[in-house]
Amino acid sequence: MDSQLSIVTSHLYAALISELGAENVSSDADIAQRHAGDWSETAKEPPSLVIFPRSPAQVAAALAVLSRFGPKAVIQGGLTGLAGAATPHRGEVALSLSKLNQIEEFDRVGGTVTVQAGVTLEQMQTCVEAEGWFFPLDLGARGTCQIGGNAATNAGGNRVIRYGTMRDLVLGLEVALPDGSVMTMLNRVTKNTTGIDLKHLFIGAEGILGVITRLVLKLAPKPSSTVTALCALTSFDDAAALLKDMQLHLPTLSAFELMWQGFIDKAVEITGARQPFTERHPVYVLVELLGASDEQDRAQLEAFLAQALEQELVQDVIVAQSIEHAKQLWEYRESIGEMLARLKPHAAFDVGIPVAAMDGFVRSVQLILQQQFPQQSHLFFGHLGDGNLHLLSGPYPAPATLHQVEEIVYQAVGKVKGSISAEHGIGVIKKEFLHFSRSPEELALMRALKRLLDPNNVLNAGRIFD
Amino acid sequence: MDSQLSIVTSHLYAALISELGAENVSSDADIAQRHAGDWSETAKEPPSLVIFPRSPAQVAAALAVLSRFGPKAVIQGGLTGLAGAATPHRGEVALSLSKLNQIEEFDRVGGTVTVQAGVTLEQMQTCVEAEGWFFPLDLGARGTCQIGGNAATNAGGNRVIRYGTMRDLVLGLEVALPDGSVMTMLNRVTKNTTGIDLKHLFIGAEGILGVITRLVLKLAPKPSSTVTALCALTSFDDAAALLKDMQLHLPTLSAFELMWQGFIDKAVEITGARQPFTERHPVYVLVELLGASDEQDRAQLEAFLAQALEQELVQDVIVAQSIEHAKQLWEYRESIGEMLARLKPHAAFDVGIPVAAMDGFVRSVQLILQQQFPQQSHLFFGHLGDGNLHLLSGPYPAPATLHQVEEIVYQAVGKVKGSISAEHGIGVIKKEFLHFSRSPEELALMRALKRLLDPNNVLNAGRIFD
Repeated sequence: MDSQLSIVTSHLYAALISELGAENVSSDADIAQRHAGDWSETAKEPPSLVIFPRSPAQVAAALAVLSRFGPKAVIQGGLTGLAGAATPHRGEVALSLSKLNQIEEFDRVGGTVTVQAGVTLEQMQTCVEAEGWFFPLDLGARGTCQIGGNAATNAGGNRVIRYGTMRDLVLGLEVALPDGSVMTMLNRVTKNTTGIDLKHLFIGAEGILGVITRLVLKLAPKPSSTVTALCALTSFDDAAALLKDMQLHLPTLSAFELMWQGFIDKAVEITGARQPFTERHPVYVLVELLGASDEQDRAQLEAFLAQALEQELVQDVIVAQSIEHAKQLWEYRESIGEMLARLKPHAAFDVGIPVAAMDGFVRSVQLILQQQFPQQSHLFFGHLGDGNLHLLSGPYPAPATLHQVEEIVYQAVGKVKGSISAEHGIGVIKKEFLHFSRSPEELALMRALKRLLDPNNVLNAGRIFD
Repeated sequence: MDSQLSIVTSHLYAALISELGAENVSSDADIAQRHAGDWSETAKEPPSLVIFPRSPAQVAAALAVLSRFGPKAVIQGGLTGLAGAATPHRGEVALSLSKLNQIEEFDRVGGTVTVQAGVTLEQMQTCVEAEGWFFPLDLGARGTCQIGGNAATNAGGNRVIRYGTMRDLVLGLEVALPDGSVMTMLNRVTKNTTGIDLKHLFIGAEGILGVITRLVLKLAPKPSSTVTALCALTSFDDAAALLKDMQLHLPTLSAFELMWQGFIDKAVEITGARQPFTERHPVYVLVELLGASDEQDRAQLEAFLAQALEQELVQDVIVAQSIEHAKQLWEYRESIGEMLARLKPHAAFDVGIPVAAMDGFVRSVQLILQQQFPQQSHLFFGHLGDGNLHLLSGPYPAPATLHQVEEIVYQAVGKVKGSISAEHGIGVIKKEFLHFSRSPEELALMRALKRLLDPNNVLNAGRIFD
């Protein structure tokens, strides 16, 4: 560090301490190491400083100081992201929201909750469920990921088909802007048509336009029953037809998870579980109903499935008879964690494909990958209801090959006008492929918005685009 | 018209004709008269020219010509708006989308439809319903209002509680920008997290940032049964509790319309219908279930209501026994059309109030209005599930009094941090009250966005803000 820089840094350090208190500004190497990256495969880089604002006002004050002294800042929530947006770049100050963790208001009549951005998803779920309300967004990282990060990445999960993504669950936001000002949009009503709805500039924007500090979230009444079933089908087309039928006849349908044969075979191989049915089938669907009466939902589902079996829309079916049994059915789907570990280094995709194009997409991509990489596994699964398709492909010995695989998949996504990221975001690792999903005009407008709100390019610089 | 201006106008006219064809550019006085205003009470003003682009490309070409010659433009859909946004200001050219009326693509597998902006809501509903799909947004103006206008005003209606507002139903947009460029964002997947979701800049923005030319809409499977009931309750709090219970136990609940006693009394007086129950009650709720089995939904509703009666959450109830009977129940709610006509000149509000604050809001506003305007009717009703409260107050002899009533109501809205417009928009008639719902920082950012996308203030100038 040259002396000029160190003078700046020491002045910055002093100014931050004066705004936030010494206990909330850290240059400790161990702490920096814990803030060196998210869950993605990006190279870790300890931040120059870590700051822990304790209030939304302190976030704004910290940004004002940073904008005066010039260092760039990276926003950090629970660090569970998969796209590298929260991994520091060299010299960045990390702005951690983990101490901004108060549930500020819980409206038990209207079903809304106002939380600070650093509250974990699980902390909030537990709080509202204790009083008969339910926050439908759910992710494996629930104990660590933070609500602010869920909003900044427009998180999805398995229940989007019924409840929508994070964007649909956020009523209001408060945001600290890069210049240290605060924008309050803490709307609490579902219908609000009073000009441009500015909160959508920040949801899914991965922190490039501002720091989300507070959120008002919409709750649903807490379901009291869960019914789970695994269905075996002959084709993707049958799965699409089944989805439409189920959405009409089973209004409590909350998850509809599609797995292709290869995925189930790999799950069986890895977990040692049995094949779910006596025969293997081309396509499997795991469904979950969240309702108010186990008996009623089960009766409806069983009557529905009996008819679907008779019509041969479904070839075979298992309805879980207990919570333990339901868990076993989910284990096929959730073996993905173990697959990710075993198939390293791998290419993992969460793309969005129009349902009508999905079967063709899977067939053609599978064919190309099998031909070019016959030694690797190429496993397809996804949330059919919302067009979110996952592909896990690996293991690949050389990083260069990974890039080749990404080119193949993202090009195919571009061809069907799909999305290169349905739920994980762009961060740094998908930047170069963004043009497959967004037009030059859109990219130009995104850059113009960045210049408008962050003219000095201080906040999460180089995320989404350069 | 001075000679300089008329030269400009004639050059403009020639340039528009050269881009759009003579049959799509009109200076005819009769046609201008038909485009002189929307359904609001704003003073009518015939536009200087009316242009009728026949393709999205022609919209962009027209905007390029207008930006070259300088006249301001007002965007016109079905002209059913209630806030005056589509009423021309003096000298404006009207850009009518009524000939941009093609349904371009209907994905029967995935349940999406791509339409041009001038397609009417009813035209699209009819098209998709013929093949087992359903577009849930519905409004009284369905035969006239256009999808582009529905998106530009983020239309709501009676089914928001289950299906959301227009914003939740739009997957993708194409927009012509004021400089004549085109921004294509025709996304067709539910989950797309690839940077800032720019379509939300245009949804609900009442045309100030661009002209919506094409839309991709999300469909739901078409319900095949409707069950309707009217409930009588003792208090607003009981209605809020009933809503939560119903949302949990009756997942096909699609409408939950609240009416206070005064509203029902006025409906009875105006329509000559009988009081719905032998006794009068403080609060009434009209509910509708849209499902796949009349028998099943009816049985579930009746079982639910029997229990609610036993618990005295509901005091009395009528479940419609036929379509005709359901219509009669809806007539109380829909007598609003007749009330609007009878109580002229009136002040009509569509505000958004947090559910927890709604009862207090209604009580205090009613008290103030009754004290200050004892000769007038003050009728409250709304879509409780989404916090949308309507108030009709009138008749008032003097326009100055109307303004006084507006001040009273909007100030009260500001106090509970509500929305001064839940679904009709700001247009020109609510501009001066916008500050009650949006912070100075939000207004500043809205203006900055307007400058960014429309630096010459050509498009829908003076709508939402000056």
